[in-house]
Formats: sequence, structure tokens, C-alpha cells
Amino acid sequence: MEAFSLKRSLDQVRSKAPLIHAITNYVTVNDCANALLAIGASPIMSDEPQEVEDITKICEGLTLNMGTLHTKSIESMFLAGRLSGTLGHPLVLDPVGAGASPLRSDIATSLVDELPLTVIRANMSEIKALAQHTSSTRGVDVCQADITSENNLAHSARFVCDFAQKTGSVLAITGAIDVISDGQHTYALRNGSPLMGRITGTGCMLSCLCTAFVAANPTQITTAVVAACASMGIAGQIAQDRLGPAEGSGSFRTYLLDALFCLDADTLERSALIDELCGI
Amino acid sequence: MEAFSLKRSLDQVRSKAPLIHAITNYVTVNDCANALLAIGASPIMSDEPQEVEDITKICEGLTLNMGTLHTKSIESMFLAGRLSGTLGHPLVLDPVGAGASPLRSDIATSLVDELPLTVIRANMSEIKALAQHTSSTRGVDVCQADITSENNLAHSARFVCDFAQKTGSVLAITGAIDVISDGQHTYALRNGSPLMGRITGTGCMLSCLCTAFVAANPTQITTAVVAACASMGIAGQIAQDRLGPAEGSGSFRTYLLDALFCLDADTLERSALIDELCGI
Amino acid sequence: MEAFSLKRSLDQVRSKAPLIHAITNYVTVNDCANALLAIGASPIMSDEPQEVEDITKICEGLTLNMGTLHTKSIESMFLAGRLSGTLGHPLVLDPVGAGASPLRSDIATSLVDELPLTVIRANMSEIKALAQHTSSTRGVDVCQADITSENNLAHSARFVCDFAQKTGSVLAITGAIDVISDGQHTYALRNGSPLMGRITGTGCMLSCLCTAFVAANPTQITTAVVAACASMGIAGQIAQDRLGPAEGSGSFRTYLLDALFCLDADTLERSALIDELCGI
Repeated sequence: MEAFSLKRSLDQVRSKAPLIHAITNYVTVNDCANALLAIGASPIMSDEPQEVEDITKICEGLTLNMGTLHTKSIESMFLAGRLSGTLGHPLVLDPVGAGASPLRSDIATSLVDELPLTVIRANMSEIKALAQHTSSTRGVDVCQADITSENNLAHSARFVCDFAQKTGSVLAITGAIDVISDGQHTYALRNGSPLMGRITGTGCMLSCLCTAFVAANPTQITTAVVAACASMGIAGQIAQDRLGPAEGSGSFRTYLLDALFCLDADTLERSALIDELCGI
Repeated sequence: MEAFSLKRSLDQVRSKAPLIHAITNYVTVNDCANALLAIGASPIMSDEPQEVEDITKICEGLTLNMGTLHTKSIESMFLAGRLSGTLGHPLVLDPVGAGASPLRSDIATSLVDELPLTVIRANMSEIKALAQHTSSTRGVDVCQADITSENNLAHSARFVCDFAQKTGSVLAITGAIDVISDGQHTYALRNGSPLMGRITGTGCMLSCLCTAFVAANPTQITTAVVAACASMGIAGQIAQDRLGPAEGSGSFRTYLLDALFCLDADTLERSALIDELCGI
Repeated sequence: MEAFSLKRSLDQVRSKAPLIHAITNYVTVNDCANALLAIGASPIMSDEPQEVEDITKICEGLTLNMGTLHTKSIESMFLAGRLSGTLGHPLVLDPVGAGASPLRSDIATSLVDELPLTVIRANMSEIKALAQHTSSTRGVDVCQADITSENNLAHSARFVCDFAQKTGSVLAITGAIDVISDGQHTYALRNGSPLMGRITGTGCMLSCLCTAFVAANPTQITTAVVAACASMGIAGQIAQDRLGPAEGSGSFRTYLLDALFCLDADTLERSALIDELCGI
């Protein structure tokens, strides 16, 4: 397997400062742009079919986020996604709310079927909707029954690994425990803070970070995805630790961006709680 | 009248964590999502006509906010609003900028006429545009002449109560003094901070909170609306009190979300400055 | 030349509180609204062709920002822009990403050709794309080769002054050194913070501030634009100075709004680092 250096992965993001194109929702788009800037990348957002391919062409990676699908943004996702594949750029899908409506499930399925996705970053309910055509999501949040815990970790890991093999994508299924798999190696990542579910956009931001990390580390894709997830999780922990008595989700959101901005590559390497899951 | 417990109303939001669908503007949508999460509810945003009914169906309440109307979001508002009525879900209208353009006034009037609105949350200029077909709003802000003060409170209360009777909705007309009426009982609420008018989105956030409170307290609608307004007002006071010397609207915005997140149900009950207006 | 009082320019914004219409992108729209409110103006956002002219009519100034162009927002920009010209309102263009795609370059060129723009606020790569039909932008960021430094300042100033003459607009080309020119007088402004490029939206916010300053100072347009740029730059410095050890771009963003909100007109006058560039 590829050498595993999270530190190097983050250093590469900062030295290369990849330009990332995001076709994303209007709820968390500002957070996505600021998260990319905080980690050292550059964002550009465009979802107009007339220009998406031109934007994809000048960028180093593409994120497709289904948070607020529109007829035209769907068209743009396929246009930009196909070109991105042709150009060999990293392509990350965040199937927000797959399972919450037939439209979202259908589009997510088509994107998985038709595009050469490098990474799929989702919660467990969304990925089950994709893999099993179930629809037990709670809106854009994970369904209680789908939460990965120590009890069902092996089962979750098997499932994620299988779907990674089936799709040929690296899967990053985030939650209380993140499960990341490229179909060969599967990792559990135990960083993060429960407050990450109390603000909107942490999943969306992470999907953009995945794109930036992979764009900056094209020969170390799995490591790059683990590094992105660990960066986000550790930033969440740092943000939570800073909270004072009267502080809540408002300050947490600010501190999360601060933590991404200030994240030290050695801290990332040292604080990441990663286990490879063998014999699953 | 229904027993009046703001404490219980907030407790119910937190224990039920209702899933709220918002068809809302792209200016303050992130604030709306974060306000819902801060108070203990869950947001999902969707305004694509192809899927809005599917989203409404899985949610416990719907907010329609006219902040940035588009042809398609208008279509979605009627589709989702009608289904919400059929399902008996709480339906809250925020007629942002009614009176500022014929389009906004016409759509607001049609939404009021055609949908079984549970709550209308607006400023006084917007509600006058709706009730009297005047257009004296100052963009999305209240017109100076329409501000509710101690001097014109009885007159304002009469007007709000009348329109509540006419529409069959609970009205929450917010400003320096909030006036809330279900057509039988009318309340003045004196919480809040002048800084709430110096950031964008406090009205939009409150409309979403109203939906969450009513969704979690379906048999106590008026109390739920008062509790939502009081929560927002008290959060504004707490946020203002935290401001240090070099701090302004940026920190206030963060502290407002913190205060909603940390809001203690006993504090809500104790700090709410509510008067029932009798004999108006 | 007009008397040069930045203090008076800001005082006028606060006393007149102009209502500003923005047709802008969905990435930074919330920041734009909050920046306008922080400085003492009022925002209204609307990009639906059916109503933009009605909104323009009730406002005192219009900002056109190309950050996320759509077919319909393009139509709205021309409709609102033409009416704004007819009404003699200040009209500010922010050609975000001109040069990044043919669509953006074409629309920017048409807006410059067809509308009576009062101000064009852009980075140097965008303005070169407009003036020279080059396309060396790095997405929405300035290209390294185009950064204005002490070494190429005279050359940059000449270029900006020429394009101001050609277009009849006041040009505000911001970066490490801002260059502002009305074709007769050209200024270098050395306020600001490098962190302004590490959050999204500082350019967009500044374009909205330019509209507010010009709307409140219609007979002192160049001074108003310098005052807007100096306000933003000084706010950036104040925000940077407030940053503690664990703080980064998240806190910087909050502090920037705080600084605009708290900005003292005397501080503005005193701290602005302006030089008129003669004999360029």
C-alpha cells in the first residue's frame, strides 16, 4: 500500500493550493468556500450549464454536492463530471439527502453509475440509499439505526468496503466513527466532535476538503481522503475544546474554521486516531 | 385558553427535534439552518418543484420565506404548501418584502388566500401590505411610520388581531415590540435587542423557529409562537450583553446562535416579557 | 477636484442609510448583506427578472456581481442596470471571474459596453480580462503575474487610469495595493490585510460598500470609492490586530464585520494610507 503520511498530505495542499470547482448547495456554499481557503486551497463555484465545463477545465478538482438540486445544476453536474473524468481530475460526490426523495436517490444513482467518481463522501444512511435503494434517511441527517458504533463497526466496514469495490471509488462514510475504504484497505477514524452535527455544513465542507487533498496528492488518494477526514475531525475537537461557558454552535462554527486555518501538519499526524480494520 | 408554558414549549422542541422543510431565500438560508439546529430541530432545504412534495412529506413542518422569489421557488411554495395543508403539518409564511414589489405583494396575497397558513411571521410594513394593499415598506425593513411603539401599541394590536381573525392564522408581527395574536388573545412581547436589525436574517431565523416550535407543540400553537419569539428576543439580549468594546454585528451574529444553543428553558420562562392586551 | 473628506463620506452613509439593491452570487451574499448593514446601509437582494426593476426603483444604488452567473440573473442584470442608469442611480459592477470562462468575459464586456457604470470594482486579473481580453485569472483570484506591487505600481496605475478614461467609470482595482482612478486622478491605497484573501467575499463586500458610499455621496464619487476601499482595508487591519494565538480565518471574518460596524469616521480619515499618483 501507499506510504501513509497525513502530514505530507496536508503539506501538499498548502504548497500546491489547488483550485477546486464546486457545484454545490446554496445552504452551506459559503462554509465550503471558507473551509477550502482555510486549509490552503482556492474555491470557485459555478453551476450554470453554459460555463461549468470551462470552469472545470481551469480547476484541479471537482466536488458535486446534491444539497439543493435544481434542474439546471443537475445538468451541470453531468457536464462538469464527465469532463472532469476525461481530464483525469479528482471528482468527489456528496450525495446529500440520497434516500430523502426519489429525485435525490435517482440522481445520486445516476451520478455513481455514469461518472468516474474518485471519492464518495456521505453519511451511512445516504450510502445505504445508494447501495441498497432503501430510504431511511432523516432528511439530510443519518437515521438513528444507521449510526456506526463500536458494536456494528465490523459490519459497517464490510458494507463500505464492498461498495468501494463495486463502485471503484474511495468511500468516506463519516459519523461518530468514520469508515474509509478503497476496497482493499478499510480504516476507522475516531476523531471529531458531536457538535459537528449541530451546525450545518460540516459534511459539505469535508467533501470539498477531500477534493482539495486528493487534487494535491493524486498518487496517494486513500491517504489524502483519510487526511482530509482526520483534519476535519481534529479541527472539530480543537474547536470544541476552545468553547467557553456561554458558547455554543455559533462560536463552534467560527472556531472550526480557525482550527482548519491553524492546523499544524505535525498535530494532524500525531492526533489522528486511525485503525486499519483487517479481516472484516 | 391553552395553558401557557414557554418552558414546556422549548423542552418539546428539544425532545422531539422536528425535521423542518424550508423553501427560503439564499441570503439567510445558512443562518436559518443553523438557528434550527441551535434550538434543537433539524433543517432541510429544497425548492425544486420536482421534489418539494417528497421533502414536505418526510418533514414535520414547512416554512415559506419570500426573501428571494424565483419563478420555480414560487411554484414549489404552492406545491409544498398545499400538501403540507393536506397532511395537517404546521405551515409558516414569512412574506419578506411584501409591498416592495408587485410580484412580492401578489405572491404573498395568493399564499395567504390559497394556503391554510398556521402562522404568518412578518414586520408591520409587510403585514400592512398584505392587509391593506399599501406599499410603504423600505425594502425588506419596516417603514419608520409602521414601527410599533408604546404610543401606537393598542392600535397595532387591534390591527394584528383583526387580521388574525380574517386569515385564521396566528400572527407574529415582530419589531421593537412584538405583537402576537390568534384572533382571540393578543400579546405584546418586549424582549429583543436593537442589534437584531443590524444583521441580516433574524426575521428569517425566527420564522423557522416558529415552525419548529409549532411542529413540536401542535396543540399549543399560540404558546409555541410566543415561545419562539421570546426565545429569539431573549437570545438577542444575551448576545448583546456579551459584546465587548471592539465587538459589533459580526460577534453579535455568532453570540445569537450561541444563545439559542445554550438557551435554558427556565431562563426562557423567567425572562419573557409578555403582556396580554385586553380590551383592545 | 472635489474636496477629499473620507470622514464626511462615511458620516453620510450612516446618516442617509441608503437602500442598496444587489444582484449577486449565492456564495457571499450573506456577507454582502451583513457588510452593508454593518457600515450603516440597508441591503435588498433580488435577481428574478419579473421584479428586479421594481426593486431597483425603490433603491438608491445597484451592485451587479458576476460571482455565480445564471441565465436569469444575467437577464436581470441588464434589466436592472438599464433602469438604474435611466434613474441616475449609482451602478457598481464586480466582474467576478472575468477571464475564467468565455461566459464571464462576454457578459462582463457587454455590461461595460451597454451600461452606464459608475464604478467597476475588481482585481487586476479581472480588469485585464476586460481591457485586454486576456484570460489569465486564477478562478476568482488574481493571477500571480498581475499582483500590483511597489515595482509595477506606476505601470498598473497608468493602465487603470487609461481604462477609467475609456469606460468613463471610476475604477477600484484592489489587492495588496489598491489602485483607484477616475481617469483624472489616480490613487494608491495601502491599507488592508493579507488575511482578506483567506476568506471568501471581501471583494464582494467591498463592491457593495462602494455602492453604498457613492449612493450617500453622489457629488463626490471618487472620494466615496476611496472611502469605501479605505474602510474595508482599515477594517481588515483592525480585524487582523485582534486575532489571538488559536484564531484564524473564522475569527477574522467575524472581526471584519465588527470592525466595519465599529469603524469610527475619524479613525478612517486618520488611518487611510492614500497617495495620489502624479505624472504616471
